Amino acid sequence: MSAYSELEDREQELSKFSELGAIAGWDEACMMPPGGGERRGQALAALTGLIHERRADPAVGELLSQARNEVLDAWQDANVDEIDRRFRAANAVPADLVKARSLATSRCEQTWREARGRNDWATVLPLLEAVVNLSRERAQALGDAMQLDPYDALLETYEPELRSSDVEREFSALKDFLPPLLDEVLGRQSDPLPLEGPFDVAQQRQLCETTMGILGFDFNRGRFDVSHHPFCGGVPDDTRITTRYDESGFLESLMAICHETGHALYQQGLPVDWRDQPVGDALGAAVHESQSLLMELQVCCSREFIEFLAPSIREAFGRDVSDPAWSGDNLYHQAIRVERGLIRVQADEVTYPLHVILRFELERELIAGRLEVRDLPEAWNAAMLKYLGRSTDGDYNNGCMQDVHWYAGLFGYFPTYTLGALTAAQWFATAREADPEIVPGIARGDLQPLLGWLRANIHGQGRRACMQPLLKEVTGSELDASYFQRHLKARYLA
Amino acid sequence: MSAYSELEDREQELSKFSELGAIAGWDEACMMPPGGGERRGQALAALTGLIHERRADPAVGELLSQARNEVLDAWQDANVDEIDRRFRAANAVPADLVKARSLATSRCEQTWREARGRNDWATVLPLLEAVVNLSRERAQALGDAMQLDPYDALLETYEPELRSSDVEREFSALKDFLPPLLDEVLGRQSDPLPLEGPFDVAQQRQLCETTMGILGFDFNRGRFDVSHHPFCGGVPDDTRITTRYDESGFLESLMAICHETGHALYQQGLPVDWRDQPVGDALGAAVHESQSLLMELQVCCSREFIEFLAPSIREAFGRDVSDPAWSGDNLYHQAIRVERGLIRVQADEVTYPLHVILRFELERELIAGRLEVRDLPEAWNAAMLKYLGRSTDGDYNNGCMQDVHWYAGLFGYFPTYTLGALTAAQWFATAREADPEIVPGIARGDLQPLLGWLRANIHGQGRRACMQPLLKEVTGSELDASYFQRHLKARYLA
Repeated sequence: MSAYSELEDREQELSKFSELGAIAGWDEACMMPPGGGERRGQALAALTGLIHERRADPAVGELLSQARNEVLDAWQDANVDEIDRRFRAANAVPADLVKARSLATSRCEQTWREARGRNDWATVLPLLEAVVNLSRERAQALGDAMQLDPYDALLETYEPELRSSDVEREFSALKDFLPPLLDEVLGRQSDPLPLEGPFDVAQQRQLCETTMGILGFDFNRGRFDVSHHPFCGGVPDDTRITTRYDESGFLESLMAICHETGHALYQQGLPVDWRDQPVGDALGAAVHESQSLLMELQVCCSREFIEFLAPSIREAFGRDVSDPAWSGDNLYHQAIRVERGLIRVQADEVTYPLHVILRFELERELIAGRLEVRDLPEAWNAAMLKYLGRSTDGDYNNGCMQDVHWYAGLFGYFPTYTLGALTAAQWFATAREADPEIVPGIARGDLQPLLGWLRANIHGQGRRACMQPLLKEVTGSELDASYFQRHLKARYLA
Repeated sequence: MSAYSELEDREQELSKFSELGAIAGWDEACMMPPGGGERRGQALAALTGLIHERRADPAVGELLSQARNEVLDAWQDANVDEIDRRFRAANAVPADLVKARSLATSRCEQTWREARGRNDWATVLPLLEAVVNLSRERAQALGDAMQLDPYDALLETYEPELRSSDVEREFSALKDFLPPLLDEVLGRQSDPLPLEGPFDVAQQRQLCETTMGILGFDFNRGRFDVSHHPFCGGVPDDTRITTRYDESGFLESLMAICHETGHALYQQGLPVDWRDQPVGDALGAAVHESQSLLMELQVCCSREFIEFLAPSIREAFGRDVSDPAWSGDNLYHQAIRVERGLIRVQADEVTYPLHVILRFELERELIAGRLEVRDLPEAWNAAMLKYLGRSTDGDYNNGCMQDVHWYAGLFGYFPTYTLGALTAAQWFATAREADPEIVPGIARGDLQPLLGWLRANIHGQGRRACMQPLLKEVTGSELDASYFQRHLKARYLA
């Protein structure tokens, strides 16, 4: 047996274990009764431990060296690269540090969940300091092993081969572009007519399911459920997305489902021939987000799609076309409303990148040790004033206590949201040009032309190429914020 | 670290993996979309392989020898026995045979599912022959390793330390007792008034949930769902039971839930201090069935309980107490109706043991090589005529093609159903005598006195003692069919 084949066999087994973890994780969020939580956490930790141990096995290092001398095709080569990447990552961080950080983040996140209700920064501060210190150590260890700057090493764990210089270049363009655009959009925008609720949950659910079907979700290989936060989980042949409902409005659950369906289509479209191998996985968080945002913002928030969906929306809630609040035009303006808010998760596509840029700049300073946790609220407020012209007014929940990420030890993740938005615009502009059937298709609810293009160019490519080379291959250039800028101008200023 | 502690650590990890398997198995039956099936099967097989490998590890054998020389308490001793039992079982059967049998049973079961629709014995015959041959080999291998008769070795895998001599003794008593009793019951029985449907599924579900709550199911540590066949799955702190609904009748789903709740209460009541250790597991299939049948037949089919539940049943379906079909008395007679049928799963408690005795006698002959598969239909029919006075009239679906067990390679399982029924009667008679509050409690829907007794005497005992010693300890005698006989006489002839 060749060394390469042996690596494949090992990965195949790990892939089975990961699948069980994915299902148990979904179950934890959607099905598990409260009393099962403690032991579920332990079971998932045991599985993670097993997978880590197998990934870090020195025998893998030997096999990798041998496989490098074997004759492999491009996919196999990329597979070896990916196995190597995982092997190095698994060996980069000492077990003691992994354990200490896991303990610290779990404590900090739990405390954050309680403290934020009381707007209580003082209580969570020392715990976040511990998390930041351990995350700095981890970033250093990862950086040493990968010969990367510590923050780049964190980015690398979310999107392979993405560097902060890539991020900075595009974010710098947005920092010039967005604030004046925002002023202009807000100056032009008029309030859409309100949509009066309440909206029955069963009717919302039905509308979401209809929309998922239109977008191409394969229900034979997936499910749709409810959870506290919308997410996409499961595995390629059993992809599970969720939303949550609020009777006072239906647009949030509907758009959450458009977003998660974008993730799901990516997962369901991964290359069948490489199901059990790392090269058959989705690329990182930025590319995944490009698929969800392409579906949510480029497709489902387009005038074409909303005009197409409007009759189904009216039918779902028994509204009449004669009511102007329920016209396609008014629904469209409801969906693309822009606001200068304090909260990232409520932000529209114009202001969202500013929220992300703020976090990217702060977390890079935190990891580099140039910013201390105790100075975070002040730095946050200064940046909010600078980028969005708003003050948190000393309210931590509207400031640095609003997102779980840092409290859970996730540093380097935030930029992927906006990189996803930029990439989505770049993919979609390219697709539209490549196949003139795509936009007319969307306008009549036929997503097949678009889906065909996504399957061939992105979904079906797995991890054969990383984000930048794939962008170059498919769109002709590496990440380029100007696509996103043109998209915003066309949508909001045309 | 002592050898015993090391064994405990190993078991703790295996217990986490088993938990993930239990959840993924439940998910497969209740949640998984069809397209996920193939890979789920592979993932569960990989997990089974991992657990088997760890159980069979020669290092476990070393640790067991050392632990035998350490000072242990009674529970730890029983834990070592149980680990030893699993170690020997894991090493008894050669890997090639395990694999061949897994393949053969999977093929045979799939073919059976299709063939039975066509009543097509000829197609499934050669596949069942292959399964029987491999099962004979396996029984021989297990028997050699455990120094047991091959069929006893199979029984041992379902109920530790249970032997066919135990089974035979009790079944022999039933073979004398039941046929004349059946004649007498059928002679006396008059038809209850029919319950006119249809019965709304949501209302049935509500009634089932109410009943589960009355019986003591802990919803904080469990769920209730729908599946193709009712079952109890999950783990002690996350116990999941299911039923199925048919709009033409509600008694079947209700009684299925009473049955599964019995299994669930056992699982939820297992000793907390031994959660991750083999000694903390439930005993085998016979004792598990004793808990489900105690709840279903001894408790929920009692006149006291049905009279108590009758108002809830009427309320669930909007029926009036003035309708005699919906009186407690008529509902009781509906629940305990006896019939000379051909199908085991539809059988009542009087005829059920005869269906089981037939299967026990045939499968013992099959495993011993004294009966060949091609002669099975004829042997089956002869036994049906002898025990139940009915002929299958050449219809295989009403004969040897009705149950999945043999086609799935399960030999030695059938007797546990009736052993469970006998044991249930023995436990319940003892409990009733020990605590005079138990029966009045049931009559007013207060199951706490009974549950307290079950928790203390059975559930909380885990695998500290095997079935026969535990029966002796708790009831004063080993398995004794006379309890069951007295129960039937009291219910049907009083």
